[in-house]
Amino acid sequence: KVDADRLWDSLMEMAKIGPGIAGGNNRQALTDEDAEGRRLFQHWCEDAGMAMTVDQMGNMFFRHEGAEPDLDPVYVGSHLDTQPTGGKYDGVLGVLAGLEVIRSIRDLGIRTRRPIVVTNWTNEEGTRFAPAMLASGVFAGVIEQDYAYARHDAKGKTFGEELARIGWKGDETPGDRKIHAMFEYHIEQGPILEAEATQIGVVTHGQGLRWIECTVTGKGQHTGSTPMRMRRNAGRGLAQLTELVHEIAMKHQPNAVGAIGHVDVYPNSRNIIPEKVVFTVDFRSHLLPVLLEMVKEFTAKAPAICADLGCEFASEIVGQFDPPAFDETLVRRVRSSAERLGYSHMDIISGAGHDACWVNKVAPTVMIMCPCVDGLSHNEAEDISREWASAGADVLLHSVLETAEI
Amino acid sequence: KVDADRLWDSLMEMAKIGPGIAGGNNRQALTDEDAEGRRLFQHWCEDAGMAMTVDQMGNMFFRHEGAEPDLDPVYVGSHLDTQPTGGKYDGVLGVLAGLEVIRSIRDLGIRTRRPIVVTNWTNEEGTRFAPAMLASGVFAGVIEQDYAYARHDAKGKTFGEELARIGWKGDETPGDRKIHAMFEYHIEQGPILEAEATQIGVVTHGQGLRWIECTVTGKGQHTGSTPMRMRRNAGRGLAQLTELVHEIAMKHQPNAVGAIGHVDVYPNSRNIIPEKVVFTVDFRSHLLPVLLEMVKEFTAKAPAICADLGCEFASEIVGQFDPPAFDETLVRRVRSSAERLGYSHMDIISGAGHDACWVNKVAPTVMIMCPCVDGLSHNEAEDISREWASAGADVLLHSVLETAEI
Ligand SMILES: NC(=O)NCCC(=O)O
Ligand SMILES: NC(=O)NCCC(=O)O
Repeated sequence: KVDADRLWDSLMEMAKIGPGIAGGNNRQALTDEDAEGRRLFQHWCEDAGMAMTVDQMGNMFFRHEGAEPDLDPVYVGSHLDTQPTGGKYDGVLGVLAGLEVIRSIRDLGIRTRRPIVVTNWTNEEGTRFAPAMLASGVFAGVIEQDYAYARHDAKGKTFGEELARIGWKGDETPGDRKIHAMFEYHIEQGPILEAEATQIGVVTHGQGLRWIECTVTGKGQHTGSTPMRMRRNAGRGLAQLTELVHEIAMKHQPNAVGAIGHVDVYPNSRNIIPEKVVFTVDFRSHLLPVLLEMVKEFTAKAPAICADLGCEFASEIVGQFDPPAFDETLVRRVRSSAERLGYSHMDIISGAGHDACWVNKVAPTVMIMCPCVDGLSHNEAEDISREWASAGADVLLHSVLETAEI
Repeated sequence: KVDADRLWDSLMEMAKIGPGIAGGNNRQALTDEDAEGRRLFQHWCEDAGMAMTVDQMGNMFFRHEGAEPDLDPVYVGSHLDTQPTGGKYDGVLGVLAGLEVIRSIRDLGIRTRRPIVVTNWTNEEGTRFAPAMLASGVFAGVIEQDYAYARHDAKGKTFGEELARIGWKGDETPGDRKIHAMFEYHIEQGPILEAEATQIGVVTHGQGLRWIECTVTGKGQHTGSTPMRMRRNAGRGLAQLTELVHEIAMKHQPNAVGAIGHVDVYPNSRNIIPEKVVFTVDFRSHLLPVLLEMVKEFTAKAPAICADLGCEFASEIVGQFDPPAFDETLVRRVRSSAERLGYSHMDIISGAGHDACWVNKVAPTVMIMCPCVDGLSHNEAEDISREWASAGADVLLHSVLETAEI
């Protein structure tokens, strides 16, 4: 078993960097806080005898040598970046549990045949730079590096510029690595494990996602002196499409979800009818036909709804992945590790997207999940217990050891 | 008649300060651009022989002496601040037409018995600091100066700090002036005069207004892993209340209008269900009972709508005035000036709020309006013709001269 306290202490230490305003974290990708978090992680990994390589996307790889250095390594990791109002565990748990696996192996004096690489993937959250899982996407060859570099935040700063500015642009070509297997341990971010009083989620599949960035354009007119009948109110477009997204998702639930989390109103003045509203629809399902059906229904109906309001509708897909199915051998291995350790476990589907979903395209991959309180995530109040954290890390340790061959 | 070209040239000159991004202006209250516009106006007024006084709200008063300096002066003015995406004429026309009245009087060698004071009222638009017409409201004694000083912009900077910072905080106590009569000349900001092919709007009444700042609070949860049935989506509160505002206004149109122009979504991340949405409802009517009825219906229904979504609703009135009726003698004078000059004219109701609405509380007041293209205002594409501008200025000149007694 891993050292539960050491894992917890590291989580608490990392959470001091980029504190939020309500007990959580704001350590968004490629900010100064991200850079500081990376330095702390580097320091810990080097202390644990690992050697660092950074690729051109800022992905960090720490190598723990195997008895047979020529064998393809086993990867374990997640992400250190957070939402603007994020929790202390989303992503961070998987990175620091990877480090804890190495620390435990060293404590135990175990030698694996294969090397083990602990990884921090850049910009998983996708808040500052859409889409999410940008750097693992480039690594897996599903996103072009030039496209990634040109992604910009709300202030117009590009991913490429900001990566260079914080000093974490490495030399290695993304994806230029052999991977024997990859493990990602993550909090569930949903309510199922807690509701089922189950310690371990064995992730068999994930949801697919489409992010549709929509622009509704009306006319910026005076709220006082423009007669009701002459208005072209883009805000009403947002209103009706918000409800449309909800209705479409409800039709397919529990096999789908849908919401609008990001909205910018222009010019955003109390006495100007919204001229333009830009917002992003987030549709997900673990069933690809359902996902495609939702996108189709939305994009078919939205233009007419806006036209009825005298507005124009335009849309662009700014994030997408199809529902992944994880590697069956690794899934079985995670399940039997939990079994052997005496932890309650169940198969689940990941509601969120993860770096593992992209890496799964290029190497056998699997995820392990632990419960989180009230299923709450992407919220500073996100919470897990020390016991939940370490149970999953134990399963991770066993699964990794078996895969890296002792 | 005034010098139409000189008036137009001054308008174009002022429009160079704080240019917008689409041919209009961004010269919001208490910005560096506002300060620069004020300096240019001061320069022009002093060139025209007027002496400046500034009050503690930054209201600027330029006095053209009368033959009998002890008589109460006639005031003429409007505002130089603009919307973030404002036009070149909203407010500015009334201020520079006031200056043009003095320039014309001097050209003609006319001497009035009463002094004439040309005025620029601070922060009429209310975009940066709500409510609108803040400084004329303090002048008229309907808004407390301490309250006004504490109003803050989206970045938390207060009105008081910013007024001091740009160097336009004067000594005079606001309202400490005798006013014989006040004239405000303004573009209509609505479509009626143009549609009726009428040069002059004789403003008999204005609309009353209520700005209701609303906060809908739900729960910031992960868009992917939170089941549909567990959501408390504050964005849906915004959506349904946007439509409620529209329905309520439609019930009373053409005697009322209503819309939401300002919306802030928190934390505004693509994969977080909106935790909180803050927005401002703008309801208006020239009939006080209708205005009150709309506010009542909205505030009665909104909490239940939000509760159905698992959200909380809170609201606060951040701007309000009742429908003003302008001074009948002055209204008749404006009408007969237009008649005498041979300009087509009609009585109209102002759709927008104006400084004249507040000053009307403490002195006989009236407004004159000219058409604007497509009724478009609070938009960089706001447009008027040189002929429209000067016709209203001619009516202003005649009305002011008659009131200031030649
Ligand atoms: N795990 C996680 O929250 N990832 C961010 C991408 C997503 O929205 O699913
Ligand atoms: N005239 C004008 O646009 N004033 C701003 C206050 C309002 O919204 O009516």
